[in-house]
Amino acid sequence: MSGNTFGKLFTVTTFGESHGLALGCIIDGCPPGLELTEADLQKDLDRRKPGTSRHTTQRREADEVRILSGVFEGKTTGTPIGLLIENTDQRSKDYSKIAGQFRPAHADYTYMHKYGIRDYRGGGRSSARETAMRVAAGAVAKKFLAERLGIQVRGYLSQLGPVKAEKLDWDQVMENPFFCPDADKVPEMEAYMDALRKEGDSIGARINVIADGVPPGLGEPIFDRLDADLAHALMSINAVKGVEIGAGFDSIEQKGTEHRDEMTPEGFLSNNAGGVLGGISSGQPIVASIALKPTSSLRLPGRAIDVDGNPVEVITTGRHDPCVGIRATPIAEAMMAIVLMDHYLRHRGQNGDVEVNTPVLGQL
Amino acid sequence: MSGNTFGKLFTVTTFGESHGLALGCIIDGCPPGLELTEADLQKDLDRRKPGTSRHTTQRREADEVRILSGVFEGKTTGTPIGLLIENTDQRSKDYSKIAGQFRPAHADYTYMHKYGIRDYRGGGRSSARETAMRVAAGAVAKKFLAERLGIQVRGYLSQLGPVKAEKLDWDQVMENPFFCPDADKVPEMEAYMDALRKEGDSIGARINVIADGVPPGLGEPIFDRLDADLAHALMSINAVKGVEIGAGFDSIEQKGTEHRDEMTPEGFLSNNAGGVLGGISSGQPIVASIALKPTSSLRLPGRAIDVDGNPVEVITTGRHDPCVGIRATPIAEAMMAIVLMDHYLRHRGQNGDVEVNTPVLGQL
Amino acid sequence: MSGNTFGKLFTVTTFGESHGLALGCIIDGCPPGLELTEADLQKDLDRRKPGTSRHTTQRREADEVRILSGVFEGKTTGTPIGLLIENTDQRSKDYSKIAGQFRPAHADYTYMHKYGIRDYRGGGRSSARETAMRVAAGAVAKKFLAERLGIQVRGYLSQLGPVKAEKLDWDQVMENPFFCPDADKVPEMEAYMDALRKEGDSIGARINVIADGVPPGLGEPIFDRLDADLAHALMSINAVKGVEIGAGFDSIEQKGTEHRDEMTPEGFLSNNAGGVLGGISSGQPIVASIALKPTSSLRLPGRAIDVDGNPVEVITTGRHDPCVGIRATPIAEAMMAIVLMDHYLRHRGQNGDVEVNTPVLGQL
Amino acid sequence: MSGNTFGKLFTVTTFGESHGLALGCIIDGCPPGLELTEADLQKDLDRRKPGTSRHTTQRREADEVRILSGVFEGKTTGTPIGLLIENTDQRSKDYSKIAGQFRPAHADYTYMHKYGIRDYRGGGRSSARETAMRVAAGAVAKKFLAERLGIQVRGYLSQLGPVKAEKLDWDQVMENPFFCPDADKVPEMEAYMDALRKEGDSIGARINVIADGVPPGLGEPIFDRLDADLAHALMSINAVKGVEIGAGFDSIEQKGTEHRDEMTPEGFLSNNAGGVLGGISSGQPIVASIALKPTSSLRLPGRAIDVDGNPVEVITTGRHDPCVGIRATPIAEAMMAIVLMDHYLRHRGQNGDVEVNTPVLGQL
Repeated sequence: MSGNTFGKLFTVTTFGESHGLALGCIIDGCPPGLELTEADLQKDLDRRKPGTSRHTTQRREADEVRILSGVFEGKTTGTPIGLLIENTDQRSKDYSKIAGQFRPAHADYTYMHKYGIRDYRGGGRSSARETAMRVAAGAVAKKFLAERLGIQVRGYLSQLGPVKAEKLDWDQVMENPFFCPDADKVPEMEAYMDALRKEGDSIGARINVIADGVPPGLGEPIFDRLDADLAHALMSINAVKGVEIGAGFDSIEQKGTEHRDEMTPEGFLSNNAGGVLGGISSGQPIVASIALKPTSSLRLPGRAIDVDGNPVEVITTGRHDPCVGIRATPIAEAMMAIVLMDHYLRHRGQNGDVEVNTPVLGQL
Repeated sequence: MSGNTFGKLFTVTTFGESHGLALGCIIDGCPPGLELTEADLQKDLDRRKPGTSRHTTQRREADEVRILSGVFEGKTTGTPIGLLIENTDQRSKDYSKIAGQFRPAHADYTYMHKYGIRDYRGGGRSSARETAMRVAAGAVAKKFLAERLGIQVRGYLSQLGPVKAEKLDWDQVMENPFFCPDADKVPEMEAYMDALRKEGDSIGARINVIADGVPPGLGEPIFDRLDADLAHALMSINAVKGVEIGAGFDSIEQKGTEHRDEMTPEGFLSNNAGGVLGGISSGQPIVASIALKPTSSLRLPGRAIDVDGNPVEVITTGRHDPCVGIRATPIAEAMMAIVLMDHYLRHRGQNGDVEVNTPVLGQL
Repeated sequence: MSGNTFGKLFTVTTFGESHGLALGCIIDGCPPGLELTEADLQKDLDRRKPGTSRHTTQRREADEVRILSGVFEGKTTGTPIGLLIENTDQRSKDYSKIAGQFRPAHADYTYMHKYGIRDYRGGGRSSARETAMRVAAGAVAKKFLAERLGIQVRGYLSQLGPVKAEKLDWDQVMENPFFCPDADKVPEMEAYMDALRKEGDSIGARINVIADGVPPGLGEPIFDRLDADLAHALMSINAVKGVEIGAGFDSIEQKGTEHRDEMTPEGFLSNNAGGVLGGISSGQPIVASIALKPTSSLRLPGRAIDVDGNPVEVITTGRHDPCVGIRATPIAEAMMAIVLMDHYLRHRGQNGDVEVNTPVLGQL
Repeated sequence: MSGNTFGKLFTVTTFGESHGLALGCIIDGCPPGLELTEADLQKDLDRRKPGTSRHTTQRREADEVRILSGVFEGKTTGTPIGLLIENTDQRSKDYSKIAGQFRPAHADYTYMHKYGIRDYRGGGRSSARETAMRVAAGAVAKKFLAERLGIQVRGYLSQLGPVKAEKLDWDQVMENPFFCPDADKVPEMEAYMDALRKEGDSIGARINVIADGVPPGLGEPIFDRLDADLAHALMSINAVKGVEIGAGFDSIEQKGTEHRDEMTPEGFLSNNAGGVLGGISSGQPIVASIALKPTSSLRLPGRAIDVDGNPVEVITTGRHDPCVGIRATPIAEAMMAIVLMDHYLRHRGQNGDVEVNTPVLGQL
């Protein structure tokens, strides 16, 4: 495998399997001088953590992160930040069944084709558990963006299966287990999820992420456009099947006079662009929306094959999220923050405009 | 600017402005031994070329490509392939107006924020003309994929504004000016476009791209997933606002039992995944769909500001596509082919499994 | 900081400061199926470890490495390998002096100019302690190269200050504390080092590294030549000031008839090229040689400035290697192995020619 | 092949074979606002051009470069700069002999092992003619460094075979055909070359390159050190077999008290470091030295093999430099300038501190 690194100047490289010894991450390129403690990361990790409501998996993952390097006397030094989460809830169980089968809609079959070997315990590297490290790295980016640049990256669940949020009240997002910004829809979501759990089935979801306060001028036209990098980052999240920027797929039926965001000296009159024009930020909020597929691990039997190509019926026992989308909000925020951070550094330089007060020696 | 290169082992780097002297491209990493002539590239360039029907811009761009390097006695040698298209239709006209204004929904405003300077003639580097070189490079990838691996990458227009194709008949795609696979819908599309032109407005579109014959095992899990790289590549095309893989946004309302593609020894029973599981190709067709926004250049006046921040009314004269989506089919194919080529080389190596028959010397 | 990653397909990313909590590393791109245990890495780490003779620093660093991911049931899976060494010998001492001064020939002054902040404890990130992780990662590369391809990467100290080895007896290299291949010169080296320690001064050294069994065809011409990547890798080792390939600087006074390595069907008649022609391996041994500067940490006073620009006299107390070159042999081997591994994967693909036996599903 | 790109934020990608249609280059990442014309590039191209004295090859290569993009109204716009040199002196000759043989010390044999095919005309891609494009790209970097930052990158030939320059008089460098800074040695060099030509043999050389005015703080510690990137860049030049920074190989026999560059408030007291400490520039001049091997193309017969492995005697007729080192000075300058430019952008950002005066819109 390669491809475990994201970013060009602000790079995040992760390792770790679902049921291995630990998850880890190296953040390379964080500018010096940022105050940083484990608590800054833990906040977002706790938002992603399972078991905080009856609507997510009941697995216990403490997800306690340690900062191993790159911070000195409470501040980043510009050197790589090593992060580690030791796995604590590796239930020893019988994996013989899963080892011999390819579960439908999982990466079992494709990993075997690529590598000829796989760590089947809990999905190994293909488990969404890997995203814990993205959340931790994203928390560093979010902090820098907020403190140095006044950029706020926030997400919410805008749709859970057939139930759509109809209002965006940021104050509500943290007040319910769904990250739903519309309090009126929460009871409907709860009822839907309760029924779904009984049924044994799972459901998809939609997450929106918005960055406010992004200055104009970030993004590299052509291939490394801000929106293209966002699409890359968001589509790399487990279970994501679609990405929209601004008006997204609604653009298909829009006319030019409707879509184009007119400008006045006071500002843009609409934001169909989602804050990106020609791949470069316009100063408007960056708006993205993603579709997450329903969880593939179900106790309802499904047809599949075993490792020798014979037909089998697969039933996934164990503790699984009936809607992986619910816990995806902090992951999507993290990926957007990482992309913005990377482009900020590309634009303004690796040191992030830090002040340097060291005397320059004359030349003898 | 940086970011004019796409790919890791099969890399495509482009240069050139809409009204500059030339467009060019370097393809680095094409394996040796592929038969290649200009005609192989011209075929796809001609599909993207404007002026082939009344429904696209009437600009004349011959888009004649020359291969300047990397091919010897009709075969690629493994060295970089330099491509060049000289610009011939640079109408000398008065650009004083466009120079002083920021057109809405264009990159004028953001380029100025990024660079403090811009080549405003025809949109300069932000013009979709840049994609000619992607098409040329994609043609090389398509040829390699087809001849060496039996992979076929094809696209079509599935929706033009409100008009949706309802059948997929590949034989029809090249038989109408829209790349529409449903012959029954072509008259409706023609009528729609004729009315639109009269109106002076523009409209969005949806393009689907499919790769058949992709072997299982391509793609790097985590950040460089095949689907994430596809999202990156497709979102980097001018005017694209959304990308879906497989079931895409429909996944939101799907239940797990519906979405998961069950497997039998004879094959998968559905393809909601769009041919990618865990970021790795499954052997099923790779299926992507993109949304393109309506053209921003309109003769209907729109509110905007000038370079000093004063309000102005912008009217774009000149020859423009009322639906940029129409000509986007070969571009989308090109980007998918480039992504597949890159991942094939990452998996199988830079020399693309070429045979080498040179004697190995013994060691004295 | 960025630039903590080396390699393109076989990438090594390190973190950690000399006196921080831990050193760590992520190896991304190791092909699947390689048998790997901590013992495989420890062997080389122990060769680099200080305190094994009176001629190196008497610091105690256990340098015990743990493999945290990427290995399942004793074999690599193709997923990233996370490595960790916890620091155990962080003597708590008074750093107030070093914090306020820029030691000559150290990175103190330049780090402050770059970052405006530095972890001064033991040199922080600029300490040669960082190379422990290179050695660990290199051990993985060496194992793959040896077992899969029959490539052997070995180094030795060819010169310690004025004392030059005159014979190359590989069996002697591990028999003395200097990695010297000429047993007759060992007493002279010992005497030299004993005198040097008394004096309080330090000395430079030369290390040679050779890879035997490299097949022809590895390396990418132009910028990513095998020799250019080797120069990059070797020059990135702390204290290295020069790199030679093959005849190196002797080439200056060689005539073409002398330098050119003639070929016969039985093999090359000489190896002035050092195994690389046009940036590509020739099948001959790859031969590199590096110069290491004398240790900069001395108890003999030197003139310097403090952080405010005032003149100071610096005396470095503590435990330091009088010749950093002595422990550099395994580091140089590691870097050469990493470069070869990377180019092998670029040539042959990410999966390293592993066999895959998973059934391919038919298409319904 | 891949690896035809150098740099991370200031990237140079080249194409073209010795006897192909053209050489080309894309410079991606040049900051906006730099005044640039073809004449700025031609100056350095003419210094590299053959046939300017009897001591270099008598081939005629006009090497006239055209700027195809990235410059608007005389200034760079931040978009990629496309460069093109059409080949004019492609003598049609009989290549049948060279096609069937592997010339000693050339890349013929290794290219065939890598690609299974090669463009044998004039060495194809492995010809030093490729470096013309490096010189052109380097000229852009040199101009930016000089005008914006006051950095001057200059080189000279310090040794031609056995004849060493003993003085460094910059005013002399352009006054003789060798780029020799010691006028007293020029007659000796001329006599040496005249005898060598008669003999039919070739000789190696040493080139020094120095950058004055580099501010402290450039370079990324660990793998992307300024000196490691320089070693990479310089070793990637055809025929280079060794690279030194500062004291280089002399460091081996230096004691620490001698090597360490002491500091006073007025400046460093010596420059054994060559301007780099811990991989970061110190503010002192950056000093590098390289060894170039003698030309491999000789009319004196040499033993070799043909493509089938049979022994042959090779005689290279045609027009060749008896000392490739002579024309290498501008190439070495170019590579150093490209490295410095890249690290400046990494440190300070892609826009190179350009001023932007576009109004920021308020948010409605």
